[in-house]
Amino acid sequence: MKRLMWAALALGTVAAQAHEGMWMPQQLPQVAKDLKAAGLAMDSSRLSQPIGYPMGAVISLGNCTASFVSPQGLVVTNHHCAYGSIQYNATPQRDLLKNGFLAATLADELPAAPGSRVYVTVALTDVTPRVLDAKTSALKGKARIEAIESSEKALVAECEKDAGHRCNVAAFYGGLQYQLIKQLEIRDVRLVHAPAQGVGLFGGDTDNWMWPRHTGDYSFYRAYVGPDGKPADFSPNNKPYQPQHVLKLASVPLNEGDFVMVAGYPGRTNRHRLPEEVGFAFGWEMPERVKVMGEQLAEIREATAGRREAEIKLANLVASVGNYYKNYQGQLASFAGSDILARKQAAHAELKAWVEADPKRREQYGASLSEIDRLLGEREAITRRELLLNYATPTLLAQARDLYQQALQRRKPDAERKSGYQERDQLRRRQSLEAVERRFDEATDKRVVGHFLTQYLAQPADQLNAAFLSALGLRQGMDAAAVAARVDQLYAGTRLTDKAERMAWLGRDSTEFEASGDTLVKAAVALRADDDARETRDKELAGRIQQAYADTMKAMIAFKASRGQAVYPDANNTLRVAFGQVRGRQPGVDGADWTAFTTLRGIVAKHTGTGEFDAPAEQLAAIKARQFGKYGVKALDSVPVNFLATLDTTGGNSGSPVLNSKGELVGLLFDGTLDAVISDWDFNPKTTRSICLDARYMLWQMTVVDKADRLLKEMGAL
Amino acid sequence: MKRLMWAALALGTVAAQAHEGMWMPQQLPQVAKDLKAAGLAMDSSRLSQPIGYPMGAVISLGNCTASFVSPQGLVVTNHHCAYGSIQYNATPQRDLLKNGFLAATLADELPAAPGSRVYVTVALTDVTPRVLDAKTSALKGKARIEAIESSEKALVAECEKDAGHRCNVAAFYGGLQYQLIKQLEIRDVRLVHAPAQGVGLFGGDTDNWMWPRHTGDYSFYRAYVGPDGKPADFSPNNKPYQPQHVLKLASVPLNEGDFVMVAGYPGRTNRHRLPEEVGFAFGWEMPERVKVMGEQLAEIREATAGRREAEIKLANLVASVGNYYKNYQGQLASFAGSDILARKQAAHAELKAWVEADPKRREQYGASLSEIDRLLGEREAITRRELLLNYATPTLLAQARDLYQQALQRRKPDAERKSGYQERDQLRRRQSLEAVERRFDEATDKRVVGHFLTQYLAQPADQLNAAFLSALGLRQGMDAAAVAARVDQLYAGTRLTDKAERMAWLGRDSTEFEASGDTLVKAAVALRADDDARETRDKELAGRIQQAYADTMKAMIAFKASRGQAVYPDANNTLRVAFGQVRGRQPGVDGADWTAFTTLRGIVAKHTGTGEFDAPAEQLAAIKARQFGKYGVKALDSVPVNFLATLDTTGGNSGSPVLNSKGELVGLLFDGTLDAVISDWDFNPKTTRSICLDARYMLWQMTVVDKADRLLKEMGAL
Repeated sequence: MKRLMWAALALGTVAAQAHEGMWMPQQLPQVAKDLKAAGLAMDSSRLSQPIGYPMGAVISLGNCTASFVSPQGLVVTNHHCAYGSIQYNATPQRDLLKNGFLAATLADELPAAPGSRVYVTVALTDVTPRVLDAKTSALKGKARIEAIESSEKALVAECEKDAGHRCNVAAFYGGLQYQLIKQLEIRDVRLVHAPAQGVGLFGGDTDNWMWPRHTGDYSFYRAYVGPDGKPADFSPNNKPYQPQHVLKLASVPLNEGDFVMVAGYPGRTNRHRLPEEVGFAFGWEMPERVKVMGEQLAEIREATAGRREAEIKLANLVASVGNYYKNYQGQLASFAGSDILARKQAAHAELKAWVEADPKRREQYGASLSEIDRLLGEREAITRRELLLNYATPTLLAQARDLYQQALQRRKPDAERKSGYQERDQLRRRQSLEAVERRFDEATDKRVVGHFLTQYLAQPADQLNAAFLSALGLRQGMDAAAVAARVDQLYAGTRLTDKAERMAWLGRDSTEFEASGDTLVKAAVALRADDDARETRDKELAGRIQQAYADTMKAMIAFKASRGQAVYPDANNTLRVAFGQVRGRQPGVDGADWTAFTTLRGIVAKHTGTGEFDAPAEQLAAIKARQFGKYGVKALDSVPVNFLATLDTTGGNSGSPVLNSKGELVGLLFDGTLDAVISDWDFNPKTTRSICLDARYMLWQMTVVDKADRLLKEMGAL
Repeated sequence: MKRLMWAALALGTVAAQAHEGMWMPQQLPQVAKDLKAAGLAMDSSRLSQPIGYPMGAVISLGNCTASFVSPQGLVVTNHHCAYGSIQYNATPQRDLLKNGFLAATLADELPAAPGSRVYVTVALTDVTPRVLDAKTSALKGKARIEAIESSEKALVAECEKDAGHRCNVAAFYGGLQYQLIKQLEIRDVRLVHAPAQGVGLFGGDTDNWMWPRHTGDYSFYRAYVGPDGKPADFSPNNKPYQPQHVLKLASVPLNEGDFVMVAGYPGRTNRHRLPEEVGFAFGWEMPERVKVMGEQLAEIREATAGRREAEIKLANLVASVGNYYKNYQGQLASFAGSDILARKQAAHAELKAWVEADPKRREQYGASLSEIDRLLGEREAITRRELLLNYATPTLLAQARDLYQQALQRRKPDAERKSGYQERDQLRRRQSLEAVERRFDEATDKRVVGHFLTQYLAQPADQLNAAFLSALGLRQGMDAAAVAARVDQLYAGTRLTDKAERMAWLGRDSTEFEASGDTLVKAAVALRADDDARETRDKELAGRIQQAYADTMKAMIAFKASRGQAVYPDANNTLRVAFGQVRGRQPGVDGADWTAFTTLRGIVAKHTGTGEFDAPAEQLAAIKARQFGKYGVKALDSVPVNFLATLDTTGGNSGSPVLNSKGELVGLLFDGTLDAVISDWDFNPKTTRSICLDARYMLWQMTVVDKADRLLKEMGAL
């Protein structure tokens, strides 16, 4: 008996550790056994319904995940996901970033940053047969990719005839499968509550990607619709949206070892990338980006030093770049100490051997498998030439090119326009253009552009884009002073720095662009031919890559299926479910084991009273007085703050609800640990941990410190 | 059986946790059982011999501990203990701080910083009956303290008739017991080897007091004596000293849970302090010092910014102040979250009740117990008035006062001079005056003094020292500009900034001081009367405190003895032994458990390539190549770097050898964890951990990376 019990425990431990996979909800029945073994206490088929409970309460904000937590459209997400909206409403006089925000009534809820959206999924359809129909399948290169885009556009147009909805076609397995996703697009989104920065951003950059962690990374939005219940622009007459599904708060306490799952919209992973791509990413692209971003951050810091207004304007960009900067460094460090590339190469060789071993398979996949590396090499050569150029391009020139392209596209019938330039895209484009005002600082832009242009122009002439140099009046080898002078001239000669002027160009005809004397508009017009040529080149290549890549993935899936293994697709911003358990890590770092939970004690221990570790005085007083209320956990002798879980997640999952075995809300996913960031490329069950906000900390802070009674009542917590 | 086994294990665990005590070697037989229970595998009576093996190999450097590790006088201590000597020999051209140092031959070994000493204890004698003889015991106040000092001086003079020796009388239990300590004073000390800063200071201030830790905190000196084998000034003809005892390197690997002991010279602890003193220290003095030191560090930083030479000059001071700054903050934070004062008060009340319960005890101790708090209050009032003044005093004025006092004392017969101003003190004084040159930066001194003088003068007039103001030409309420102008005048009017001039004053008669026009010498002369008055006041108080305090301690020891408990004295820079085990900590910090060992992996993980985390490239390459040699530990899959142990230690213990159950060298103590620093006042067995360098890391670095073959052979490691 004893021996058997141990065996069972040992298996249990293995299962607890190996929770790889961001599964499409409809794939969950394939892993029902694993779900049950991990501790799921509900029927897994319920989870496979993307529009039932609980999945139907999970929503997208575009680049973050969120969920409905009240019948009145209350939305919870991460503080860092709502950061742009908090910043948008913050002024030096009313510093919502620093002090937090709590709307006393519905009427006090503030418009979120322009372009903010809540996307509620209402239907998912497999459209592979329509996208890759017989005719398209026979095409190659640019023609093929344009046929695919054309089918996608047709599907989207058809779908969006249902007003208030936004549809898109997502590609899975490198273009092997396609899914049409239909979402209700709520465009009146309001900021309801954010804790003080000393809670929501506690630990700041220092603690980012780190454990032990003590960040209260939560904020609340509310979705509003018109009086008719349909999506509408902001209006005082709008009323809260009433969602079909609302997450319930946990009815049982969460402990170490408990089952948890996370539902959300992970952005991009690269688990199925080919060895050629892995080698390029870690051997050239990431090291180069780390170098460039480090310089970008330094230039922004210098340019904004002592100007609080500029600092606030650029805070969002700095946070975002800083995040990638640290992420890439972590990935590179992990890669350097790993055998990822060697394993990738071995696996790929195995696949090739399997294909070669059978004439039918060789016939079906052989050509694509042998062509794909060469095609990827072509794409990498382009990246090498153009990466720096993007950083050397003035923000307003990018806007001017985009405005001119819009004007050109507007001359065509809507259906023939490039995707992103159709009528359906107009509103979002307008708002995005408006938002430039709140993020653009001329002095900073000049400094950053000058810095990178000088670097770019120091390269040999044959590495440079001649059209770009000619359009901007630049020459190979110009020194920093000459570049700065030229950048000054370009800015002096443009009126795009003025918001009204920028917005006015939205309505102008392409002939007006072509007749304009504005330096940046002129440059945009001059660049059009080269931009088009590069686009054609990219499309030709993309079409050929799509074909070879999809075949390669098809071969891989068939190979795995021959071994009885299911394959989840790489993340692509579509709804996924990951599951695992609440677990610490041994070792955490050299010299320390990580335990599963942190507590309020750690906040007091880290608090310095300045900078990134500045907990609010009221919070510290409540902790000192041991006012744990119903959120105290006896075993911890405190309130749990954050926890670690064996959940397979990535960027985009931020804000995702973490659910217990009954599908109830126990936390919000907000980060991964630094040495797990490499997991976007290579999942290591021993080291990969997601970092989650414990819902009890959020509710405790809202109850005891911030007195957010109105919201707590709505959620059923009071 | 099972029940009994668990009981035994439980007891074992308690014993493993409760290793309080810095025992005098001669007390060790009192705790022989505890030593054995903890794992000591040698006869504990051997440890009680301060001049046998291993204690005889343990030496003092004045404010650090060290030990002999070769028959040729090779001494190992901490990098941070040899820091002053490394800095002394460093120049911008030959940056020994940054790059480390390894003498190729004996002839290449460099003179340590002036004043560096190796003290080898040759005899310990209890002299309480002579210090507190019948006559002295009958005296009070100043007369009493002067009689004690006079006895001490006589004992020292008698002892030091043996040339080449330094003697001193140490007081134990607040002046209840006295011990005469005779030490061979080796004054030709040379720097032999220090690793690169990226090893010896790896982690810098960021990691100071922290775990996990990866600091290679070791350096080597060598003790030299004259051709006759006796202490001598530096000379090329000197030869290595041959110690009587030399520590052996460990013959068995060290594992978690193993017995360890540490022998060394802990500086000061306050375990037996009275509640009144605890309240003042944490309620006023430490918070005030933290504030003042924070400002001092900021002023030094500003004053030396961009001047590398000044930075090097002040590096030692900055490191030392920074260390206390962090230490005090840690103590204050621990105190704030503790019930130390309440427990102290309860224990003191218990003692008082025990005394009151018996007429004979009341007769013996009652008066002192009731008087001591009032006396301590008087002393605290003086500290409140004078703390800031010390920071507001120019460095060279302190030197001038000292020089003038020397001249005055020289007029008396040697035996009548104040202690510290006798013939025996001359050489050390000269060297200390010489060393000012390497630590004094005029611009920095002016800035710091100006800052604190302005603060000092902003206080109400009745809080100020009128003599000081008058001697320096200052007025209450002077603003920063006026203070700066006055400080400029004072420095402009002195020639003490010139080294030769400073040294010249060493030989001058007191009348020359009194006739001098030098601004700072004049001020020193003008301050003499007030300095004397304050000294008299302090002595009167000290005599009364000594009497009442010693009685209070006597009562406490009798009280504890009545309960069968032994009492170790507070640390006082005399040789002590602490013992315990290699142990991690659960929890370490909120969210992480500390494991007992760190490894080379952690160096790679922390390495950033800049600042405090800049491991040498050769070291990183050796780690990457897994060149662990014989120092690799299979269970760790690496070389152990630092370890945690339940050892009761404090400042002064730095550099102490850590010995295994056989008395062999396994490491060097170099730090304690931050939340254990409060243990100077209140020992908490759950949290108190000492941080030790694992000797295997030192030997690995010397073998594989630094190729210090000559030294390894000497130590028997090659």
